[in-house]
Amino acid sequence: MLTDIQISRAARLQPISAIAAKLGLQPDAIEPYGHHKAKIDLAVAGLGDTRGRLILVTAINPTPAGEGKTTTSVGLADALCRIGHKTVLALREPSLGPCFGTKGGATGGGYAQVGPMEDINLHFTGDFHAITSAHNLLAAMIDNHIHWGNALDIDVRRVVWRRVLDINDRALRQIVQSVGGVGNGFPRESGFDITVASEVMAILCLARDLDDLEERLGRIVIGYTRAKTPVTASDLKAAGAMTVLLAQAIKPNLVQTLEGNPALLHGGPFANIAHGCNSVIATRAALALGDFVVTEAGFGADLGAEKFFDIKCRQAGLKPAAAVIVATVRALKMNGGVAKADLGSEDVEAVRRGSVNLVRHIENVRSFGVPVVVAINHFTSDTDAEIEVLREAAASQGADAHVCRHWADGGAGAEDLAHAVAALAGSDAAQFAPLYPDELPLIDKINTVATRIYRAGSVAASPAILAQLGRWEEAGYGHLPVCMAKTQYSFSADPTLLGAPSGHVLPVREVKLSAGAGFVVAICGEIMTMPGLPRVPAAESIRFDARGEIEGLF
Amino acid sequence: MLTDIQISRAARLQPISAIAAKLGLQPDAIEPYGHHKAKIDLAVAGLGDTRGRLILVTAINPTPAGEGKTTTSVGLADALCRIGHKTVLALREPSLGPCFGTKGGATGGGYAQVGPMEDINLHFTGDFHAITSAHNLLAAMIDNHIHWGNALDIDVRRVVWRRVLDINDRALRQIVQSVGGVGNGFPRESGFDITVASEVMAILCLARDLDDLEERLGRIVIGYTRAKTPVTASDLKAAGAMTVLLAQAIKPNLVQTLEGNPALLHGGPFANIAHGCNSVIATRAALALGDFVVTEAGFGADLGAEKFFDIKCRQAGLKPAAAVIVATVRALKMNGGVAKADLGSEDVEAVRRGSVNLVRHIENVRSFGVPVVVAINHFTSDTDAEIEVLREAAASQGADAHVCRHWADGGAGAEDLAHAVAALAGSDAAQFAPLYPDELPLIDKINTVATRIYRAGSVAASPAILAQLGRWEEAGYGHLPVCMAKTQYSFSADPTLLGAPSGHVLPVREVKLSAGAGFVVAICGEIMTMPGLPRVPAAESIRFDARGEIEGLF
Repeated sequence: MLTDIQISRAARLQPISAIAAKLGLQPDAIEPYGHHKAKIDLAVAGLGDTRGRLILVTAINPTPAGEGKTTTSVGLADALCRIGHKTVLALREPSLGPCFGTKGGATGGGYAQVGPMEDINLHFTGDFHAITSAHNLLAAMIDNHIHWGNALDIDVRRVVWRRVLDINDRALRQIVQSVGGVGNGFPRESGFDITVASEVMAILCLARDLDDLEERLGRIVIGYTRAKTPVTASDLKAAGAMTVLLAQAIKPNLVQTLEGNPALLHGGPFANIAHGCNSVIATRAALALGDFVVTEAGFGADLGAEKFFDIKCRQAGLKPAAAVIVATVRALKMNGGVAKADLGSEDVEAVRRGSVNLVRHIENVRSFGVPVVVAINHFTSDTDAEIEVLREAAASQGADAHVCRHWADGGAGAEDLAHAVAALAGSDAAQFAPLYPDELPLIDKINTVATRIYRAGSVAASPAILAQLGRWEEAGYGHLPVCMAKTQYSFSADPTLLGAPSGHVLPVREVKLSAGAGFVVAICGEIMTMPGLPRVPAAESIRFDARGEIEGLF
Repeated sequence: MLTDIQISRAARLQPISAIAAKLGLQPDAIEPYGHHKAKIDLAVAGLGDTRGRLILVTAINPTPAGEGKTTTSVGLADALCRIGHKTVLALREPSLGPCFGTKGGATGGGYAQVGPMEDINLHFTGDFHAITSAHNLLAAMIDNHIHWGNALDIDVRRVVWRRVLDINDRALRQIVQSVGGVGNGFPRESGFDITVASEVMAILCLARDLDDLEERLGRIVIGYTRAKTPVTASDLKAAGAMTVLLAQAIKPNLVQTLEGNPALLHGGPFANIAHGCNSVIATRAALALGDFVVTEAGFGADLGAEKFFDIKCRQAGLKPAAAVIVATVRALKMNGGVAKADLGSEDVEAVRRGSVNLVRHIENVRSFGVPVVVAINHFTSDTDAEIEVLREAAASQGADAHVCRHWADGGAGAEDLAHAVAALAGSDAAQFAPLYPDELPLIDKINTVATRIYRAGSVAASPAILAQLGRWEEAGYGHLPVCMAKTQYSFSADPTLLGAPSGHVLPVREVKLSAGAGFVVAICGEIMTMPGLPRVPAAESIRFDARGEIEGLF
């Protein structure tokens, strides 16, 4: 059996101008980056006529290996193209740093991949580097302002803007900066996050155009004065220069699936402290260029779909036409209590027990007014009996479920799913509405997500957290949606509580304001924003082999 | 009078494929980055047939505003093309960070510029970002190795590899990293330099190909064991992954002058702690593609030309055919003792006094066996009498001097210079040899540069520094050339000692091993490797104006 990288290298990619032509884009509407990548001109990307039907690919609570949302998205898009629909993929672009920690890229798998795989997983078109630059310019301007007299009276103990790098580096998580004497500024504690955790990343992904980008960047709260008044990037006159640094990065990236269908890979915010979706600009461009648009949200539907609906669709005015919930026999077995080592053996009863997880995700997604199809992402160890139980669980909710073999067969392996999705998304069955109104108090928004999506009995938040939320409401941030940061493995904040738990307590440990992105983050658990490298990092085996091909990266 | 940016915006750049065609490069030999930038395939760039004549543009000791080396290089290349010679420019690419500190890019000026100016000054083709990634990956692997058991017995007090960012940020000059507990590693002091100061930058600029790059990266000394044995990037198994990260960055960047002539902008190491020249690969590619190649070295000839000859040409086997020394009436006046505020007023005697500086640079460059032409970079305040004195000074050494008006007139303004350079470079007059042999002890190499180029009476180095040089010689680094880091404003280490001082003492304050780049740095003065932002940084005024054009950047 061929590996992902072997399949990718065997594929003959088409010139990117040919892919652009399939979308009706003239050569001057794209800026090539090499022969197989391009940026799309913002004038095209910003087209108001978003006529396409938007399909969200989400998933049940996953195993640590993931349930194949990206692979299914690619397979579904290829299948929709095969059955005659002009379809555009709109996915996130991967982060560079983690590739050097644990093996593995993020461009799909098997015969359902986008390419060129190595370019995409390495520097791609430089978007994340531009975000790093813009983020760190703001950081430098904060300390520079303090150094030269601190006219804004920034409290150095209350600077919340850290720095970022696209790397796994635990040594930078917490630092004491500006040591060494007067010339280096005022010493204080701070640290680095990985670039995908930057609020600039979330902003880039939610901005509608360059003007909106600049306004959002200006709204970033970098810290507080001694009187606890928020200080913004706009107060520091940083937003203009940050926008200039992001002018290329905001343009969507055009690549292709291995079957030669167009894919926009653009932006990649964290799915915990941010909303975990590709950019609004790319999604809108895809909707302007295609009849169907297949997009994805990070983690399971409790986190990813909820944020896609309540943050991205709310802010961007998007109306999803259908959702695909990816389920695997393996993940349902795990949700049914089977240990990781035993997931390869048949266990029909475990699938049945675990299917409560799928059922609840179907209910949840439908509660946003979005119709659902279930994609059974097939593994060779799945048995017919197990698949039948999964199908029954979906049917109990009136949802179609289709076995998909895109990993092994490409688009041809997902045609059944594609027919069902096309029918549903084309049916005007969707009546999308977000879960809660803007005007609800922040704590009530958290309560709403916790009780209606997570089925928690209650939310536990300290008086300090409630007071902080109150201060933000007084400062004018009460209208923002909430962005929940919790484990992806459970509906609860406890990663070991599988299946469909109810009545649990959701502990809110910390809250964080992302005023530029436009949400308040509620952190419910330990969230790592700067990964470390493992004992033996993948970097040790990554190199060019004798034929000049990269080995060890995937 | 139009500003640089107005001139640049008014110019109609040709498609980069047309510029490539002028060099005989087929479309598949380049990778476009947008419509006006491209990477050149390494198979082409690595052509062994380097038939062209190499012309170095260097300068006298400058005023703080610089004497126009880059502008003269562009003007000379355009002029050589105008008079019928197939000429390729080979220059450094600018650093992003400083653009946000003090106004000003680094792509020439007036009608002697390369474009697209904004792209080049911002992220360009991402080379510096790739260097940042590769550098910081190594840093992360060092701390990760120590964290997971430190099998190599690295002394955490003797880690010399810092981190880098392409930004002006004084707060990062000195930090305490890895604080916050066991999970974040062992706390230690470290800091960040600006990316152009990275040894990876110097390595990229001296590597002959991808294999040489990987070998050099492997030779980087990151620190020492408790027994003071050097620990290398190769010991950490980091070189392969760093090479993979640099695979695009190592390819030369093709752009054009405003007159549509080809320019390779590639690499940009510091001119103090590194050698300050564009990449060997780009220079060799230019020599393979053109009849004449115009290149530049940082700072005045005492630093820039010496390092170009003793480091770059020595390592790469390059044989320069001629050198152009750029002089201005203003700088000679300053070297003659005139205060900065009075440089605009005629002072013939001051020019005469200051011309000793030019005379010495001519002597020095010739001592490498390289013939010299003087370019008088014309300013509107220059008087005929002043220019005549400058010309006489050159003539006293038997060197031609030509007034150049490329800033105002483009290539047409530098035709006299071009004729003289073409005649000299085509004459086989050069008999290039480096200043000292490889086998000379390190301290004697420092002494040789100090006495023969700087005309110092002696070198002052502490016993600790002499002992360190001795340890490096024992460890096998004695054959390396030295890279002098001192002020650019004087032949001495004292920036106020202008003209042509002799008999001074050159204090070596610190030495630094760049084993991958292949030199030992002798630091003679305060060298800043991480700039800070000024009180009112340019970033505060940089933004898109109402027409969508960048304002405040230049």
